[in-house]
Amino acid sequence: MSTATPAYEQLASTWTRLHNLEHLQAIAGWDHAANMPPKGNEARAAALAEMAALLHRMRTDPNLGHGLQCAEQEPLSEEQRANLREMQRQWQAATALPESLVQRQQIVTSRCEHAWRQQRPANDWAGFAPQLKEVLALAREEAQLLADKSGLRPYDALMDRFEPGMRCTQVDQVFGDVRRWLPGLIQQVIAKQAQEDVILPVGPFAIEKQRALCEQVIRLLGFDFEAGRLDVSTHPFCGGVPEDVRLTTRFRDDEFITSLMGTIHETGHGRYEQNLPREWLGQPMAQARSMALHESQSLSFEMQLGSHPGFVARLAPMVTATFGAQPAFTPQNLHRLITRVKPGFIRVDADEVTYPAHVILRYEIEKALIEGEVEVDDIPALWDAKMMELLGVDTRGNFKDGAMQDVHWPSGLFGYFPCYSLGAMYAAQWFATMRRQMPDLDARIGAGDLAPVFDWLRDNIWTQASRWTTDELARRASGEPLNAAHFKAHLETRYLG
Amino acid sequence: MSTATPAYEQLASTWTRLHNLEHLQAIAGWDHAANMPPKGNEARAAALAEMAALLHRMRTDPNLGHGLQCAEQEPLSEEQRANLREMQRQWQAATALPESLVQRQQIVTSRCEHAWRQQRPANDWAGFAPQLKEVLALAREEAQLLADKSGLRPYDALMDRFEPGMRCTQVDQVFGDVRRWLPGLIQQVIAKQAQEDVILPVGPFAIEKQRALCEQVIRLLGFDFEAGRLDVSTHPFCGGVPEDVRLTTRFRDDEFITSLMGTIHETGHGRYEQNLPREWLGQPMAQARSMALHESQSLSFEMQLGSHPGFVARLAPMVTATFGAQPAFTPQNLHRLITRVKPGFIRVDADEVTYPAHVILRYEIEKALIEGEVEVDDIPALWDAKMMELLGVDTRGNFKDGAMQDVHWPSGLFGYFPCYSLGAMYAAQWFATMRRQMPDLDARIGAGDLAPVFDWLRDNIWTQASRWTTDELARRASGEPLNAAHFKAHLETRYLG
Repeated sequence: MSTATPAYEQLASTWTRLHNLEHLQAIAGWDHAANMPPKGNEARAAALAEMAALLHRMRTDPNLGHGLQCAEQEPLSEEQRANLREMQRQWQAATALPESLVQRQQIVTSRCEHAWRQQRPANDWAGFAPQLKEVLALAREEAQLLADKSGLRPYDALMDRFEPGMRCTQVDQVFGDVRRWLPGLIQQVIAKQAQEDVILPVGPFAIEKQRALCEQVIRLLGFDFEAGRLDVSTHPFCGGVPEDVRLTTRFRDDEFITSLMGTIHETGHGRYEQNLPREWLGQPMAQARSMALHESQSLSFEMQLGSHPGFVARLAPMVTATFGAQPAFTPQNLHRLITRVKPGFIRVDADEVTYPAHVILRYEIEKALIEGEVEVDDIPALWDAKMMELLGVDTRGNFKDGAMQDVHWPSGLFGYFPCYSLGAMYAAQWFATMRRQMPDLDARIGAGDLAPVFDWLRDNIWTQASRWTTDELARRASGEPLNAAHFKAHLETRYLG
Repeated sequence: MSTATPAYEQLASTWTRLHNLEHLQAIAGWDHAANMPPKGNEARAAALAEMAALLHRMRTDPNLGHGLQCAEQEPLSEEQRANLREMQRQWQAATALPESLVQRQQIVTSRCEHAWRQQRPANDWAGFAPQLKEVLALAREEAQLLADKSGLRPYDALMDRFEPGMRCTQVDQVFGDVRRWLPGLIQQVIAKQAQEDVILPVGPFAIEKQRALCEQVIRLLGFDFEAGRLDVSTHPFCGGVPEDVRLTTRFRDDEFITSLMGTIHETGHGRYEQNLPREWLGQPMAQARSMALHESQSLSFEMQLGSHPGFVARLAPMVTATFGAQPAFTPQNLHRLITRVKPGFIRVDADEVTYPAHVILRYEIEKALIEGEVEVDDIPALWDAKMMELLGVDTRGNFKDGAMQDVHWPSGLFGYFPCYSLGAMYAAQWFATMRRQMPDLDARIGAGDLAPVFDWLRDNIWTQASRWTTDELARRASGEPLNAAHFKAHLETRYLG
């Protein structure tokens, strides 16, 4: 190769190959959730495992490590250097763990998760706990290995896989602050909303009409259907590849708001993916920055924009046109339905105000688990105490709607939960910045002009991908690193204003 | 590995890996046709090319060649030996051609096929011919290389990729025979059908109703929807993997019979795939025997069974229940519609009786092209003469409905066409055998008892997969190798009886 950067070029071409093969993995993964008939499961699992092993071999090829060292010495552009930094991060992650640990984790987590699918509906904590202990033991082993290699604290080392650069000290400070004001805010909001009349929509809501409404809203939100689709799956997600984004939702005919808002949520993920820098696609620098940043996009769409009274006023006539006129479909009533606050057991059903409580309690427990301060047997008591303290909800004996409700722990995903609430905070920070830069933002949203929002997100978040560290990205976008005060102000304005 | 057959075991494990990766290729290929939005095309093409290159490297790994030699000496079971035979066949095919030729072919055929998509609607033979000449030159080079290696005639070497063991001498004899009786038979059928009144169905036929009817018929035909799906694509096909078969069809709301019969056709392919021997899946021995054998299944379903008057009598009430009563929906009239014979320009629209004429003329021309007896510039005159001779149809100047109508030549698929009619002949042979073994077969089909047909096909064809050579399979199933007399008898019975 006649280039001044032969090692870098070689690396870039390896990552293009990885991107191409990950494309097939992503489509097969989407198909698994959206299409696959049940008897296809075994063959699909074998195919995906084969590909995972192949990709792992490619990502841990010793030649890559050598190439990364050589590329360091080459005369790279600023963007190439950012790309090399992300390559190195991925290489560290891929090579950090011995193959034997990864294999043991696969066996233990898939066994635990499989059993959990039966144990959860049966509320069988006694059956679940021993398997979760095995998963936790390996997660601790993994965290210690990663910590030894990186110099991070064990929990930080796990969290860094999802949220590069984020540390417990910062999360403790941010979540500690939320912890102080959130229970009081929730009580205030409940008291305020108790004064408001809310009219419930009357179903049924035909699935085909709901689908058409969702597609209409997705278009309004700028999603490119020439480069993506909407389908149905049991658990909604945003999958596929940046060049072909696959959104999923689910429909029930007795209710339409959950599906509609969920679809708006996934559309935020989808627009991030569709607007990653095309000319860099395939390279690590062109990948979404982090899980919190990704969630900041879905929540910018679902909460900041989608639950904005001005946007809901645009939704109302579309809802009426879809299902026929109902008293519940006035802009004001629809907004009240969408922003209803009610403490409950289940994280994924929680509203914007109570959601952080669910995340904080999980964060506190899983951090203590990983750092050896508490054990699996301590979880139920901790759960009950924190749910009562944060949300005033009694979870005693109700394991299935308590510590057994999420797939994260049985599948070994420790360190992920904080991203959800960090994402909500970043989303509030982006909109606070937009309002500072565009004082008429709310009026424009109310007038149906969404372009300022999309332009800002595209310029400041989507096209920036992984060019900067998260802190640097936040500073460039908003003038400051993560600042949870914007989230508090957002909740106070919307729910108490 | 503590086994007496270490080389064989190693080979089997390589083929299992290939099977796993081909699974992802197949699902992504199906998704490309059934789901993919237009802007996903470039990334999908890159992903599929990456996988094709990876599979090619695995299939041509020199270690495989060595392993195949070693395994020859090992104490294998009869089934393992059959599997080894098929491994060797695939290895020969994969390693027969130099990489440089394969790459040139990819470039030239994809350019020619791409241009053809514009040139065909424009009837632009002058633009098409120079590109087809390039494709032909490489196909001749390929045929000669394969011939040198195998000792076969050049055209035989190409045909052997699709129909192992089939040779020109046999096809010449079989098709030569058909050539003699077919034009006369067509005239007799047309004269006979001219005496019959046919009532045309009155549309429109709602797509959702058509889809429901197709799914009902597919179930009736024993397709397992727990291990497969029906979707829509521009060109119907049977894709996916044996464990998860993906049928596709297409719908127009002014006509339903084409889609229904096409779906029945694909269901035949699908049941073959769904009933390949499960315990051997992943190994070459468990793959469908050949393209003609595959076509013999789709045509067993569409023509032998699906167009059987007894089966059509079962369809008629389903059609009435779907679209409401019409004079056209009597069993007799529906059967007349399904079995209507009319010489035409287009192969894929042809009925069962005129179809072989389309295949024979293509076979005669492509064999002469590959063996250097004629050139691309000779095609139009040959086409016109043969169409007039075989079907009495004037194609002069109409290239788009003539030699430019099929994708096969622009994409370099020489040697494939005979499989279609060989498949029709095998299908007739299977049903002749069933009637010999079960004299009440037609009565049972008329009574709605399809189990004897499915049982026979499962035991004699589907589960036999590639255990035997095609000739041996045919002998075991029907007591004789390919015998086209059964096809002639079938046409005479159904259309002149």
